[in-house]
Amino acid sequence: MCPAVNVEAMSTHEKSPLDRFHGVIPAGGTGTRLWPLSRAAAPKFLHDLTGSGSTLIRATYERLQPLSGKRLMVVTGKAHRRAVRAQLPELKDSDLVLESEPKDSGAAIGLAAAILYHRDPDIIMGSFAADQVIAPAEDFQAAVREAVHTAAEGYIVTIGILPTHPSTGFGYIRAGDPLDIAGAPSAHSVIEFVEKPSVAVAREYIDSGKYSWNAGMFVAPVALMLKHLEANEPLLYAGLMEIAAAWDTRSRNEVARRVWPTLPKIAIDYAVAEPAAAAGDVAMIPGNFSWDDVGDFAAIGRLNPAMENSELTVMGEGARVFSENASGIVVSDTKRVIALIGIDDVVIVDTPDALLVTTKEHAQEVKKAVESLRASGDVDVL
Amino acid sequence: MCPAVNVEAMSTHEKSPLDRFHGVIPAGGTGTRLWPLSRAAAPKFLHDLTGSGSTLIRATYERLQPLSGKRLMVVTGKAHRRAVRAQLPELKDSDLVLESEPKDSGAAIGLAAAILYHRDPDIIMGSFAADQVIAPAEDFQAAVREAVHTAAEGYIVTIGILPTHPSTGFGYIRAGDPLDIAGAPSAHSVIEFVEKPSVAVAREYIDSGKYSWNAGMFVAPVALMLKHLEANEPLLYAGLMEIAAAWDTRSRNEVARRVWPTLPKIAIDYAVAEPAAAAGDVAMIPGNFSWDDVGDFAAIGRLNPAMENSELTVMGEGARVFSENASGIVVSDTKRVIALIGIDDVVIVDTPDALLVTTKEHAQEVKKAVESLRASGDVDVL
Repeated sequence: MCPAVNVEAMSTHEKSPLDRFHGVIPAGGTGTRLWPLSRAAAPKFLHDLTGSGSTLIRATYERLQPLSGKRLMVVTGKAHRRAVRAQLPELKDSDLVLESEPKDSGAAIGLAAAILYHRDPDIIMGSFAADQVIAPAEDFQAAVREAVHTAAEGYIVTIGILPTHPSTGFGYIRAGDPLDIAGAPSAHSVIEFVEKPSVAVAREYIDSGKYSWNAGMFVAPVALMLKHLEANEPLLYAGLMEIAAAWDTRSRNEVARRVWPTLPKIAIDYAVAEPAAAAGDVAMIPGNFSWDDVGDFAAIGRLNPAMENSELTVMGEGARVFSENASGIVVSDTKRVIALIGIDDVVIVDTPDALLVTTKEHAQEVKKAVESLRASGDVDVL
Repeated sequence: MCPAVNVEAMSTHEKSPLDRFHGVIPAGGTGTRLWPLSRAAAPKFLHDLTGSGSTLIRATYERLQPLSGKRLMVVTGKAHRRAVRAQLPELKDSDLVLESEPKDSGAAIGLAAAILYHRDPDIIMGSFAADQVIAPAEDFQAAVREAVHTAAEGYIVTIGILPTHPSTGFGYIRAGDPLDIAGAPSAHSVIEFVEKPSVAVAREYIDSGKYSWNAGMFVAPVALMLKHLEANEPLLYAGLMEIAAAWDTRSRNEVARRVWPTLPKIAIDYAVAEPAAAAGDVAMIPGNFSWDDVGDFAAIGRLNPAMENSELTVMGEGARVFSENASGIVVSDTKRVIALIGIDDVVIVDTPDALLVTTKEHAQEVKKAVESLRASGDVDVL
């Protein structure tokens, strides 16, 4: 049996909302549009895509640490256990949640919420994907602080990204009126989440000034997350609560192994965020920071400066690139000599078993290549 | 002391000119414009660049065999001994001339002439580079037969290639009047060899109808070759004759090792062909066959049909190429998956230690890449 969530209890606590904060980093997805660099065995979050010297998951962890201290949990596939451990040696075993099979974000983030709720029902969780690039960290942290204060007032709070172009690749958040919340001067209510729009609709959204990109960042009391999950996905809720009850006991593995495979696959947006918005329980803090989800190789060009005296961005330790009248991006994951002659806006990704050659303009279509390779059975390189 | 060449003796023999024919295949050059496929350790002639299943040197050998039988000699660098042996298992040891260091075509072809002269002063040699693509073989052989008949009348005979465009990459041959030679109805005298021209001059040449490309094909009595060599390059002549005298004896290696490094480097064009033309000793047979020196990767595109339902030419056994909206040439010398998306007229050459990405238009500039790599010390991949 699952313990009922007592939402009323949330309002009576003495800690500052910030003391209740606990970071959660869902680290999933294979980043197929960054194939062959990013792939099932080495997804996007395990790469240093900004030339900073840190992998994206490490940078995400370090961006949250000033807010959360060691109260950080990572949810990832069991195949990435060793790599994530290497990246985050500080992480406790009980804070590394390993999925035996992918179950979408509803189960991943929901399990984090359920485990944290079992530890302390007052926790305010903040969920931030492991593969986004954000700067400066201070502005991100300021937005999260506002989000935590807003969450403490009983909201699921998303951080909205100011759209820079009419993207058809993101969902949008439609903001409502400002909220009057201490510690969160920029908080707004959210009227709805909308799915990826057409270009024309995206343009209207941007022109209206009412819409932000939905980057999937949520800050919310775990109890409120679970309340909506219970209402919308009772089977998922029950399963997650059963695993969570066993998590900090000896039967963790036994229960997880038994229950996890039975859970429904659903995105957290459908399981929690959209119904919560319809119920008036969602708020938004605008993010005043630069944000990039590194959706394709063109993004890598944006995020990394070109070489001196060249229009070529070269990534990769030990890259040996010779170029003449060439521009674009070279990602070298081998020690091979790469010679480029007379070619513009090219994207070259050189890995030991697979080579991609495309252009910045076609960078989004890399996903299709991966799908075709999968269809043709060439799965050894995916 | 060197034996004097008795040119007068040439006119008194009873064999048919064709019985006197002996093929010579100089196999040199690294084909830097085909880097990184062609390189010092694996030059152009050791590759199958036409998708025929034969390397260029094997195809050259088989094209000459109907004319020469086993009377075929190969001159190449000692580094290629094993590879040439593997390609031409029929070749006798005494017909594989190995250069301990490169000495240009004057020494290479001159040594073949000298060795053959020592074996039989009546031999008519035909020298054909190992890395040219010619079809159909029958038309080539018909031209060589005419050339042999012409050579037997006391000419150094070149086979002229009908120019298809005003190339600035080839030397040209200026033909004179027709010659009246039995068995060689298309033989013409040659007025001069001219160096690589400008585009404007090349256009004039083509419009005049008097010029052919010089593909470096020579058919000539060895005695006549040596007569001109002796007159123009007496030191080279003397050295070659000394090696040749020892060639079919036990002291071959000792003499070659001692003399070869002392020989001057000069092209056969300067050492023999041009002075012979000035002396009126050169004739020309027009070659009525298609000819390609596979000068760059654009040529590989011409010589190999594109894949069905695609504008992409893919070369390489076991190539795993996925393409979408891509055209051009992929040469795969690895088992890697290569994905091309939205890129036109591209040239990709994928080898274990070096990758080239360029366009057909810039294919000629590959040579520059090689020069830059050499200058920067990246000689391991050259």
